[in-house]
Amino acid sequence: MGTYKTGIVMMNLGGPANLDEVEPFLLELFADREIIQLPFQRWLGPFIARRRTPKVQGLYSKIGGGSPILRYTEAQGRGMVERLDRLSPETAPHQFYVAFRYIQPKSEDALRAMHADGVRRAIAFTQYPQFSCSTTGSSLNELWRAAARTGLHDAFEWSVIDRWPVHDGFIDAMTETVREGLLQFEPADRDKAVLLFSAHSLPLDVIDRGDAYPQEIGASVHRVVERLGVSNPYLLAYQSEVGPVRWQGPSTERVIRRLGTRGEKRVLVVPIAFTSDHIETLSELDREYGELAHRVGITHYKRSPALNERPRFLDALADIVREHLASGRACSTQYPMRCAGCTNPQCRNILNPVKPAEAARSVEPRPRVRVAG
Amino acid sequence: MGTYKTGIVMMNLGGPANLDEVEPFLLELFADREIIQLPFQRWLGPFIARRRTPKVQGLYSKIGGGSPILRYTEAQGRGMVERLDRLSPETAPHQFYVAFRYIQPKSEDALRAMHADGVRRAIAFTQYPQFSCSTTGSSLNELWRAAARTGLHDAFEWSVIDRWPVHDGFIDAMTETVREGLLQFEPADRDKAVLLFSAHSLPLDVIDRGDAYPQEIGASVHRVVERLGVSNPYLLAYQSEVGPVRWQGPSTERVIRRLGTRGEKRVLVVPIAFTSDHIETLSELDREYGELAHRVGITHYKRSPALNERPRFLDALADIVREHLASGRACSTQYPMRCAGCTNPQCRNILNPVKPAEAARSVEPRPRVRVAG
Repeated sequence: MGTYKTGIVMMNLGGPANLDEVEPFLLELFADREIIQLPFQRWLGPFIARRRTPKVQGLYSKIGGGSPILRYTEAQGRGMVERLDRLSPETAPHQFYVAFRYIQPKSEDALRAMHADGVRRAIAFTQYPQFSCSTTGSSLNELWRAAARTGLHDAFEWSVIDRWPVHDGFIDAMTETVREGLLQFEPADRDKAVLLFSAHSLPLDVIDRGDAYPQEIGASVHRVVERLGVSNPYLLAYQSEVGPVRWQGPSTERVIRRLGTRGEKRVLVVPIAFTSDHIETLSELDREYGELAHRVGITHYKRSPALNERPRFLDALADIVREHLASGRACSTQYPMRCAGCTNPQCRNILNPVKPAEAARSVEPRPRVRVAG
Repeated sequence: MGTYKTGIVMMNLGGPANLDEVEPFLLELFADREIIQLPFQRWLGPFIARRRTPKVQGLYSKIGGGSPILRYTEAQGRGMVERLDRLSPETAPHQFYVAFRYIQPKSEDALRAMHADGVRRAIAFTQYPQFSCSTTGSSLNELWRAAARTGLHDAFEWSVIDRWPVHDGFIDAMTETVREGLLQFEPADRDKAVLLFSAHSLPLDVIDRGDAYPQEIGASVHRVVERLGVSNPYLLAYQSEVGPVRWQGPSTERVIRRLGTRGEKRVLVVPIAFTSDHIETLSELDREYGELAHRVGITHYKRSPALNERPRFLDALADIVREHLASGRACSTQYPMRCAGCTNPQCRNILNPVKPAEAARSVEPRPRVRVAG
């Protein structure tokens, strides 16, 4: 037996921890054809990445010199496994391992650490609530490639938590952030604020392949509004478009501009697809769009807090994993269903998947063909 | 007192009842800048409409020579008011009035009939479950214009049922249609069928203005799948794109082509945004895509039935109106919120809206400044 019985790989985009990491981060991001497909990508990807580096470094320098996403992810992981050890003693002890897509710690780091800890039963847990091939899909494909590269192809039995757009605990935690966001307005004005849900946009080519992202975002937004039970109007928009392709709209930036122009005075922006603060919240939503909002006459522009380390979200993370372990499933019903337009044979695989029956019985230690560690 | 206490205007697109009505229908459709914005619309609209007429006539001739939408809407209306008279005696007797957007009976017809029936309290009830400015929005704006044209500007006190994407009864009825759809497959294959939810597409320009449609479609789909509780994978796609603009994807046609090409054998198409059969189900989904599916090797291509006259849907319609009347609201929280990119001052108005307090007390007859009828 290893140190830990269940390993949970927390997969996310990641962000540069300091200014020197900005260029390598952007180079990896714009090289990933699973997140963005550019004409002449080998040339145009690095070109865009390098051209954007000074600007992005400038943005990071204004939010403390780096992304806080690793710090938050580690705090989330700690809170999650602590709860899981209590909630699911059969699968304890649990440990978490961070796997970012474009920056350290990467999939290799997670896999090697998990192997060193003697873990055999592993869960790939996406930290994106809504599934997209360009986020969760790309992270999973990279995880399996990294397992091959590190020679850990057979080291683990895997299952996948690939989406949780309307998980009850997630919706509860999101609703709490919106309520807190609304507290930033004067009581008399609170019900006049427009709730502007904002999600990271996707290139339309990804949407046209059949990516589930927009419908899962819609489902999350609708559920939060329903649970919230307030009478504020709401909108959904998409942020962070880059590069020379057309993206899913409406654009958050343009929506803010237009709301201001037509006289809205109070806007609460709600990040619905990010679980931790990073540059898209701290810089883009808070600073860039905050200045824009001010210029166009939105006198009260606020953002609801990110989920970050809030206990209700840590509860949600633990509950998602507990439910997953108890279900005995290797993945969601949706995961094996490739996008209609998918041309990537790597997609929707699970390396060495835990067998459903065994997963259901995973509370019982069973003889293992290979012993890890 | 008039013959009826509460009038319910059932608003929908409509469809040509016979082949002679195809051209006028298409001319009105392509002239409506609220549903489609074309360059040089005054010229290009009629051009596209006339060019499409023979083709569309050919399609209608194959589905019985006309659209059954009026027949279904009238059956829905009868079932709805019959139930309402039982469920909500305080607001009875109820009567329904059909208002199609591009063909008789139009808004004028509904308003005149309602006036002749001595109705004062009127509800504009969209028959599109999910809100879009190009469907419900356009119908409402036309209704208020028609009231002005007919001199019935002050004849009614209005409230609006502008959307019901996750109404419990609607989701129940939809779920029932999907279950029935699945019965068309052999029991052993039933859980292998891909559920392909299909909604009418929208031009991206409409989406980019901030139209709520895609997120409400996403919410409906998610809720149906949840209620269904089956393990079939599902996809959402958009159908019926026409004209020289880019539309919201993925395209239902292309999705079917690609599913077949990659070897899927069983597909159940589920119309999620239409409540009655019309050309988009009977011709496009059943015939056109059915033939396509056959060509690309989908051996079992089926469609779940439209809601049409099924009792559970009539229950839903009545329940939506009952809830609305009981709420005392003039419209949903969302309705007054214009799209961020809206440039149409007509949008999101309510003519002579019922006052919330009065609406709540609408069970009591009260003195009226103007007596209708």
